[in-house]
Amino acid sequence: MSTFANRVARLRTLLAEQRLDAFIVTSLTHLRYLTGFTGTNGLGVVSRRDVFLLTDSRYRAQAAQEVRSARRICTQRPLLEAMAEHHCLAYCKRAGFESHVLTFQQYRVLRKSFPGKLFVPTSGFVEKLLLVKEPAELAAMRAAMRISDRVFGEIVTLLRPGIREKDVAAEITYRQHLSGADSDAFDPIVASGDRGSLPHGRASNRILRRGDLVTLDFGCTVRGYHSDLTRTVALGRVTRRGREVYRLVYEAQQAAIAAARGGMRASELDAVARRVITDGGYGPAFSHSLGHGLGLHNHERPRISSLSTDTLTAGSVITVEPGIYIPGWGGVRIEDDVLLTPTGNTVLTTAPKHLMVL
Amino acid sequence: MSTFANRVARLRTLLAEQRLDAFIVTSLTHLRYLTGFTGTNGLGVVSRRDVFLLTDSRYRAQAAQEVRSARRICTQRPLLEAMAEHHCLAYCKRAGFESHVLTFQQYRVLRKSFPGKLFVPTSGFVEKLLLVKEPAELAAMRAAMRISDRVFGEIVTLLRPGIREKDVAAEITYRQHLSGADSDAFDPIVASGDRGSLPHGRASNRILRRGDLVTLDFGCTVRGYHSDLTRTVALGRVTRRGREVYRLVYEAQQAAIAAARGGMRASELDAVARRVITDGGYGPAFSHSLGHGLGLHNHERPRISSLSTDTLTAGSVITVEPGIYIPGWGGVRIEDDVLLTPTGNTVLTTAPKHLMVL
Repeated sequence: MSTFANRVARLRTLLAEQRLDAFIVTSLTHLRYLTGFTGTNGLGVVSRRDVFLLTDSRYRAQAAQEVRSARRICTQRPLLEAMAEHHCLAYCKRAGFESHVLTFQQYRVLRKSFPGKLFVPTSGFVEKLLLVKEPAELAAMRAAMRISDRVFGEIVTLLRPGIREKDVAAEITYRQHLSGADSDAFDPIVASGDRGSLPHGRASNRILRRGDLVTLDFGCTVRGYHSDLTRTVALGRVTRRGREVYRLVYEAQQAAIAAARGGMRASELDAVARRVITDGGYGPAFSHSLGHGLGLHNHERPRISSLSTDTLTAGSVITVEPGIYIPGWGGVRIEDDVLLTPTGNTVLTTAPKHLMVL
Repeated sequence: MSTFANRVARLRTLLAEQRLDAFIVTSLTHLRYLTGFTGTNGLGVVSRRDVFLLTDSRYRAQAAQEVRSARRICTQRPLLEAMAEHHCLAYCKRAGFESHVLTFQQYRVLRKSFPGKLFVPTSGFVEKLLLVKEPAELAAMRAAMRISDRVFGEIVTLLRPGIREKDVAAEITYRQHLSGADSDAFDPIVASGDRGSLPHGRASNRILRRGDLVTLDFGCTVRGYHSDLTRTVALGRVTRRGREVYRLVYEAQQAAIAAARGGMRASELDAVARRVITDGGYGPAFSHSLGHGLGLHNHERPRISSLSTDTLTAGSVITVEPGIYIPGWGGVRIEDDVLLTPTGNTVLTTAPKHLMVL
């Protein structure tokens, strides 16, 4: 069975459990997973017998190249309306939809276009399939991670006082592309000096200075699959506080990596890292969750936070990324991508983690 | 009145017309327009008296820097639930929401969190405000367009047989960044040879060859505002058919630019370009719409297609981008960004448009 046929078969098993005889795919990422289609406008329908891919006429040739396992419909009409015209829900009574993706307006179009059908909100169906990575998916992720690791090595040779954060970000993007990345996983974060206290500080016009801690958080995609890597480095010198904060984040991250395994509760893993930072006196400064699942999405299940009810699954890839953020001073974050196994894990990113003073 | 206060005041006028006493902003682009917030997780509420910005704790410092005109709420809870806890809809009975952005699931959370309120689906409220560009918005767009124009000039000096499409795309992205762009407007399209028949052909591993037509479609953002530029160039030599197709697309584009003005029907403008291509015998090969509005969104109102019911507005910026696509052979597209005036328009992009044979 082809990759896509196999994924669709697993989805159909989930649908049968909920007595659904069709599923409407509006997440483009999930559409890619189920059909291979990579365009920016598309809709999928998985019924008991058929798989349909609907897209607009700009993507006619591309869909023909990419999609072999679904019936392709190229249209100039809104896709949900075309779905009715092409009878994509024939013989279906109960159709599931992605309630966290489908908009309220799309829902109304659906109801209007298919007066006799019952539409059932679902969440987490395809997400469940994404959890355990297939060998080809892991290969793509490892390729993306190799690129990010290599680019980190190149970037530290460029970092010096006088460079703008934005120019560092431009180099990261450029070098990831030249190394074979399809795209950035997200706009690279380059947060230096006091801007390091912004966990999601996009690269700004700030000029790097001697004495800065610089947090670099970036990733790329290969065949749709993501890498996500964070390192914090020092320029020229490090204060005692800088060393203390770095050491705490490093130890928290190491403790979490030592503990992470399939079958563990996600909140428990978050607690392992959080305890180290709290015991060190910086608890409130670790102001976000420990990590998240990684794959076709840059953020996917599981959530790894104190509030998460998820359980970690062997075969999933997660990020482990504790940080400490101090307004007016700066911050430190260290992040690796980790493949969970039944008994432990494999750390997939390999960029050096000791405090580098450049 | 500040920029943001002025925009909120204009929104409140629209709300009053629909007897709405609050508006829930879930589009991050619209949230940026109304409050200045640029984070990746946020929610806005505009009531008669207040403006709230809700975001998560990662963005506490950033929100404080960016947002002065709204009450900031930073939370670890889901934002729609936090909205209830912080009484953001106090004294409101009828609250509008963005029905084309709010997901079905978010709608259910809203209904559950605010049992007494009436939620009214709306579409196009903020979009209407975006139509006419303010001077500062135009300045940002012109800056983005200058960058793209300049980078096109640099790229044509690099194009030659033997280069990969992906490496051309990497150069476009890198050079736009170094020239001051905040980000790519979208992943650059580099479609060469027969791949030129894909209107949205992302850069691939294909190697440029002598005799190729190469379509470059890219843009960047400056302070959130987009440029969008397409040129098709020839490598080494051009066939007679290549010249014929290029001339038709060029003439169609020139005819549309000669005709475009505020007050005109969008479908009429589409027809002007389509007629030239149809009369030239390539009607079905112009398989997409003529253009779209441009601004904080890469695609916004108006739609410029044969089916559009929009009217063009003076003060809007639109793209004019006819194309001809021939499977197995290739394609040509030419695109400029155009500021509409009551009597005509100003073409904002300035990259050369004659057929360049490199």
